[in-house]
Amino acid sequence: MRAVRVACVQNDPAFGVRDANLDAAEALLEGVEADVVVLPELFASGYSFRDRAEAEAAAEPFPDGPTVRRLLAWSRRRGAAFVAGFPERAGSRVHNAAAVVADGRPLACYRKVHLFAFEREVFDAGEDGFPVVEHRGVRVGTMVCFDWIFPEAARSLALAGADLIAHPSNLVLPWCQRAMPLRALENGVFTVTANRVGTEHRSPRPVLRFTGGSLVAGPDGSVLAQASADGTAVVVAEVDVLRARDKRLPGGNDRLADRRPHCYGAPTAPSKDA
Amino acid sequence: MRAVRVACVQNDPAFGVRDANLDAAEALLEGVEADVVVLPELFASGYSFRDRAEAEAAAEPFPDGPTVRRLLAWSRRRGAAFVAGFPERAGSRVHNAAAVVADGRPLACYRKVHLFAFEREVFDAGEDGFPVVEHRGVRVGTMVCFDWIFPEAARSLALAGADLIAHPSNLVLPWCQRAMPLRALENGVFTVTANRVGTEHRSPRPVLRFTGGSLVAGPDGSVLAQASADGTAVVVAEVDVLRARDKRLPGGNDRLADRRPHCYGAPTAPSKDA
Repeated sequence: MRAVRVACVQNDPAFGVRDANLDAAEALLEGVEADVVVLPELFASGYSFRDRAEAEAAAEPFPDGPTVRRLLAWSRRRGAAFVAGFPERAGSRVHNAAAVVADGRPLACYRKVHLFAFEREVFDAGEDGFPVVEHRGVRVGTMVCFDWIFPEAARSLALAGADLIAHPSNLVLPWCQRAMPLRALENGVFTVTANRVGTEHRSPRPVLRFTGGSLVAGPDGSVLAQASADGTAVVVAEVDVLRARDKRLPGGNDRLADRRPHCYGAPTAPSKDA
Repeated sequence: MRAVRVACVQNDPAFGVRDANLDAAEALLEGVEADVVVLPELFASGYSFRDRAEAEAAAEPFPDGPTVRRLLAWSRRRGAAFVAGFPERAGSRVHNAAAVVADGRPLACYRKVHLFAFEREVFDAGEDGFPVVEHRGVRVGTMVCFDWIFPEAARSLALAGADLIAHPSNLVLPWCQRAMPLRALENGVFTVTANRVGTEHRSPRPVLRFTGGSLVAGPDGSVLAQASADGTAVVVAEVDVLRARDKRLPGGNDRLADRRPHCYGAPTAPSKDA
């Protein structure tokens, strides 16, 4: 299998001006050639919804809304897969979602399982787990932003066969960029964290400063490409997907097969003798 | 609750000379005052057993063997808890184990669940999960070395109520010292990784170089104390156990209560519409 090119887009959207943000993202993508493109969480809507009504007003159905239609067009033109965050309306529910599309076709809509902070006031939590889709031989899993701190999220994707975890983000806490190489290592996968930069201040919510540093990490815990903490950017890395299919570590252990689930969870009583 | 002093011992044992290694560890402990003391994996026996027979010959019962008796004496004299690795014989089984003792009493014997590399040839894997014991108000959980790479190990301990994860180790891979602050962060616990230094070359096994860098990490992902990569050392940190009882992150999420287990594991089919 040839190397797969992944692109990680770091944008700087303004709140509430979706079409301008889509145009700016399209400009960032100019000249980028990649098989898999990851954009941030809520990359075209902005993040700090004041309340549920504001989120509902911005939300769109999947796949027939303006943001996803644009993603579909980009993916058709490039023959690429795109993973990007948008606010999804699904009946009476509103989700912090990520669209997964490829070659002009909708493949999956991930609904964020672990809502962060005030997101719990404006979105409904996803109930459908973490999807894995295949695009040209690469199995792409999706999780969004704060999902990273729960190791179960990336683990669920690895156990479902993901080679690469697309990770649209709007990071404001200080840890994720340092943590993702470990998530890649412990699961033997590639990770693509697309974060945004800039600030939002939508009173009465606090000022949020987004921390950039978008990165691609490899199954050996290395950082393959990383954007700076400031400014828009597109970073690209070539990844050998076969490296994500061999879970062995030096010494021969298999990161997934050597799990011992019957030993997890509530421990048994301490064993004091034979 | 007063601050709890934890000590992390980094020793340099020679293979097969248990009593000399115990004496050397006792010398390292001279003048150390701590409530919880963690020593490395197999800290008195050495690590690179050539075969099962050699491990069986070195193994001792719990708690009535020479290594554990010495730990019991140290713990009685200091009023401290000790967690330290030793080869355990239990009937016909031989485990890479860690003794947990306090105030001269045996509390638990942890049998390593995830055996690394050649360990699988000489030890039996533990089947009893990950124990948590209480000593003077601190809930001490135990895992050993390679268990770190499986996030399920530290997670199991946190879910069982551990404030602090004692982590006797003989590290030869390059990642663990960088990863433990994340294990502490994602679970909201303190971690105490006691690693060894030095080399072992027991033909036909390869030369093993142990990487030191023993460390104490805090629930905010910080490194509270760390030894160098070379040389014996005892590093001490004072920890506020109450910080491990409050799992909230900035923004208000709870690292354990906000887990969503029904969304983990095999994902459902991709949701393409409402």
